[in-house]
Amino acid sequence: MGYIHIYTGNGKGKTTAAIGLAVRAALSGKKVYIGQFIKGKPYNEDKLVNFINNITIEKFGRGCFIKGKPEEEDFKLAKNGLEKVKNIISENIYDLIILDEINIALYYCLIDLKELIKLLKFKNSKADIVLTGRYAPAELIDIADLVTEMKEIKHYYYNNINAREGIEY
Amino acid sequence: MGYIHIYTGNGKGKTTAAIGLAVRAALSGKKVYIGQFIKGKPYNEDKLVNFINNITIEKFGRGCFIKGKPEEEDFKLAKNGLEKVKNIISENIYDLIILDEINIALYYCLIDLKELIKLLKFKNSKADIVLTGRYAPAELIDIADLVTEMKEIKHYYYNNINAREGIEY
Repeated sequence: MGYIHIYTGNGKGKTTAAIGLAVRAALSGKKVYIGQFIKGKPYNEDKLVNFINNITIEKFGRGCFIKGKPEEEDFKLAKNGLEKVKNIISENIYDLIILDEINIALYYCLIDLKELIKLLKFKNSKADIVLTGRYAPAELIDIADLVTEMKEIKHYYYNNINAREGIEY
Repeated sequence: MGYIHIYTGNGKGKTTAAIGLAVRAALSGKKVYIGQFIKGKPYNEDKLVNFINNITIEKFGRGCFIKGKPEEEDFKLAKNGLEKVKNIISENIYDLIILDEINIALYYCLIDLKELIKLLKFKNSKADIVLTGRYAPAELIDIADLVTEMKEIKHYYYNNINAREGIEY
């Protein structure tokens, strides 16, 4: 059975590390599934699938919340995403499953924490599962095998530098 | 002028995040140089250069220290690496320069901190420079624009699980 990893914290590098892990795994011949919660817009990393075999990327969000809070559509997309993930896990064909920003989906109650924990705890899958995003809840950390907090020590956002293509996204 | 990033701390995800950043940058059309200190053996991520254009990877180490401490050869390789990096920075053709595990090279005094800081402070290069590895010294953190500490909250190494190909390396 695979392990459960969490990348959380307020620092830069959570999704970035997950992408790095996806690439490393795919280059070693592993089959990788990336399901991105919240996100909906195209990112540069989506192009990965054109260059490296064995990586699948799907999105379960709209990219942002209109008026800063989730609406019916956001709940629907996230719930459908979790259903998709259930199937992906039970198919058992992937070696690495990355659930990007799923901690944010939990934070906004777009998906149910108990349902996710049940899925992770009773999975009978070979896949390592990586959960990313700020605010990983304590109940998830409890059942994880590996947890890294990306802690912001210094960030140039504070100096009014905007997110730059190819670096932040 | 580009920014200086540091990924440090005792948690998993430093090199992994740097690899993710390299991929994101290359896929957005940026030119990426990865210089790896300490490391010498082939890694799965080395194969990246076969799939994605715009990435160059070079190694300045032997993969480990014989008898656990550096020898003359390690100093020589790291010093040559730093010379190479000086040239890479002054050529100014790369948009992203990753100096992987350079903090470890500093920790073992394989290279001179003052020399590196001089190089970083007075660089007149467009490149973002990313420094990875545990034990980033305070003097480096002082001059960096973005610093993330990857903090280990939980790690399955403690349960006697060995590093696995495609996941840890």
